[in-house]
Amino acid sequence: MSETITTEVVNRVLYATIENPPINLVDRPFVRDLVELLDELDGSPDIGVAVFSSADEDFFLPHVDVLHIPEYTAEAARSGGPYDVNLGALYRRLSELGQVTITVLEGRAGGAGNEFALATDMRFASRERAVVGQLEVGTGLFPGAGAVQHLSRLLGRGNAMQVLLAADDWTAVEAERIGLVNKALPDEELWSYVTAVAERIAGFPAAAVRLVKRRINAATLSPREDAYVDGSLFATLASDPEMAKRISFLMDQGFQTRSRAELEIGAVLAEYSSSGAD
Amino acid sequence: MSETITTEVVNRVLYATIENPPINLVDRPFVRDLVELLDELDGSPDIGVAVFSSADEDFFLPHVDVLHIPEYTAEAARSGGPYDVNLGALYRRLSELGQVTITVLEGRAGGAGNEFALATDMRFASRERAVVGQLEVGTGLFPGAGAVQHLSRLLGRGNAMQVLLAADDWTAVEAERIGLVNKALPDEELWSYVTAVAERIAGFPAAAVRLVKRRINAATLSPREDAYVDGSLFATLASDPEMAKRISFLMDQGFQTRSRAELEIGAVLAEYSSSGAD
Amino acid sequence: MSETITTEVVNRVLYATIENPPINLVDRPFVRDLVELLDELDGSPDIGVAVFSSADEDFFLPHVDVLHIPEYTAEAARSGGPYDVNLGALYRRLSELGQVTITVLEGRAGGAGNEFALATDMRFASRERAVVGQLEVGTGLFPGAGAVQHLSRLLGRGNAMQVLLAADDWTAVEAERIGLVNKALPDEELWSYVTAVAERIAGFPAAAVRLVKRRINAATLSPREDAYVDGSLFATLASDPEMAKRISFLMDQGFQTRSRAELEIGAVLAEYSSSGAD
Repeated sequence: MSETITTEVVNRVLYATIENPPINLVDRPFVRDLVELLDELDGSPDIGVAVFSSADEDFFLPHVDVLHIPEYTAEAARSGGPYDVNLGALYRRLSELGQVTITVLEGRAGGAGNEFALATDMRFASRERAVVGQLEVGTGLFPGAGAVQHLSRLLGRGNAMQVLLAADDWTAVEAERIGLVNKALPDEELWSYVTAVAERIAGFPAAAVRLVKRRINAATLSPREDAYVDGSLFATLASDPEMAKRISFLMDQGFQTRSRAELEIGAVLAEYSSSGAD
Repeated sequence: MSETITTEVVNRVLYATIENPPINLVDRPFVRDLVELLDELDGSPDIGVAVFSSADEDFFLPHVDVLHIPEYTAEAARSGGPYDVNLGALYRRLSELGQVTITVLEGRAGGAGNEFALATDMRFASRERAVVGQLEVGTGLFPGAGAVQHLSRLLGRGNAMQVLLAADDWTAVEAERIGLVNKALPDEELWSYVTAVAERIAGFPAAAVRLVKRRINAATLSPREDAYVDGSLFATLASDPEMAKRISFLMDQGFQTRSRAELEIGAVLAEYSSSGAD
Repeated sequence: MSETITTEVVNRVLYATIENPPINLVDRPFVRDLVELLDELDGSPDIGVAVFSSADEDFFLPHVDVLHIPEYTAEAARSGGPYDVNLGALYRRLSELGQVTITVLEGRAGGAGNEFALATDMRFASRERAVVGQLEVGTGLFPGAGAVQHLSRLLGRGNAMQVLLAADDWTAVEAERIGLVNKALPDEELWSYVTAVAERIAGFPAAAVRLVKRRINAATLSPREDAYVDGSLFATLASDPEMAKRISFLMDQGFQTRSRAELEIGAVLAEYSSSGAD
């Protein structure tokens, strides 16, 4: 029934491929399908590991659909339980999933798309093609679905400040250097490496895997309340006129389509100041 | 009186060499001798730094003696004080020692052997020969003597997940990249580097060294209760039938002897699933 | 009115250049001027980013003026508010500044000079010329103005122990490797890189920048009380006779002047033990 996520199970590993044209935005259909997939995984003891990747050459998940924020937020809230609030809370559910989760980054992961990757347990990136970043601050938004918490803990204060405040693009090699991804691999090695890690873990005793993941989460995830605080800050800035002007400028450049405003978003963000749009 | 740890003191630095044939298992004799050594160091203001290394070319400390868990655990509990519970609690005592502690890794450090290294203050590894890892999850056990806490804090969530859940071998260079060791050095530089660091610190004012170590510990060590929680999870899984089957498979391959099941443990762990042993 | 810090504002970026002859010590005049600059920045919504660098080729800020500790401490306490105690508390104010702060390291940053850099939000270092370190333990002092807290969180326990206890010099490349600086860049790229990052952030919506910085601070800065605890430990050791002997030895070697005792302080610290001065 999923429109945007195709799944296949091999050796206790679920491979989830995201295909949500035109550019894999985190939008209402994707969020709906993600909730459904998490519901399925919760009831699937036969799946040990879930591997997420994209069918789009250019994009893993570039960011949310900024024109339909209330819609995807409402869809995320339908996840229910302690996670019934916003996208960040849904991602928290992803982090606490019983299965081990892995993201394969081959195209661009930005904003809430990178926050999806950060919510999974491990990230492996194509050395040639992956690009990651948090564009929010450059658009006047707050990275409210987990990036502040994850990056503060993964990268430390100095690099978290740079990634979040400069809102620029990071290559896979630089992302590996600062600890944002586990490892950057050449395309010709990427999938065999990931499959080996995934099948390996899926073949280990499930009780040990589950307990260890739970204890790492207890030591590394931020307090759950942060999903609410950061989500509120996102909501606040999303109704700021300054944000509307920046997004309008970006839409004029082709934002949310396969255009330079997406493929070189890091550079385009910096052009607003000198565009006279202000 | 120590059977398994030889010591020598030079310029306020104690060099402790582990030699516990056949392969330096963390077993009852080693734990007994470690407790004795910690008792001695507690009463030795003339020693500023303790450097731990192994006399065995292949092994620093590969893991615990899985056939005698109650015996070494009881020995660890004899350490007394707030540390009278299990191996993790004894390692916590090691972390809180008044002296600065350094581990030199030239062979394999795995499981509770790597947890020993993580409990010391710094780790320097032979670029050519050191291999580190946490095999527990691959055997159905829980890494309950500190690895979850140390790796979560040293490596961050992503790499901690991979090291602990994939339970694979890591080279010194990769271990340095993710922050698991301070530095990987070529064999020809390793000991002169370590000796210089150790003698340097041992020559500095003791009050400053002690206070700074105490404050770093306050900022970086996990709550003490975690030694009890993680130790309990280890004990729980140690009586799981799934663990018994995996260990039995490994014993058939030569586990706990100088065999491929030790020298290539990372690879051997993954062979169980396809062995039909299940 | 500032004697030791020259400022210039370009595109909402304030460039603050430190020039406090003879060697940019953190002394009473510099601390007075820093308090004044922070007061100015607090009332300057038109400035988005502050970039700190040094006019001295050899020194960013090598350390405090050890002969006038009470004087600069009293000056720092005049900062007022919750920061009215000591240098570490003043640096905490710097970390919590509304503006984003960047340090450019081209010469030596040591002791409280490196703690200044650590208190700013990002650090970029000259690959050829920057040298960083915490010399305190080598002189019998406690690094009490933030280093223990920042390094414990940025570097993790192992490398924090080494940087703080071995009290040695670190090159820019090694500092980047362990995460002490954001990035080490060749001289010919350093300033264009820094200016681009600074102007980029200064051109982004101020509300987003401010909120994100505040949330990163909440996740990464240590409890404020630590400034008091660490400052007290510094004060305690500063009156220790052992510290007086070490400092006296260093003064004989030219400490606090442009001499080998400053330009090769890492090496000189280790010479005390073998000097027979003890």
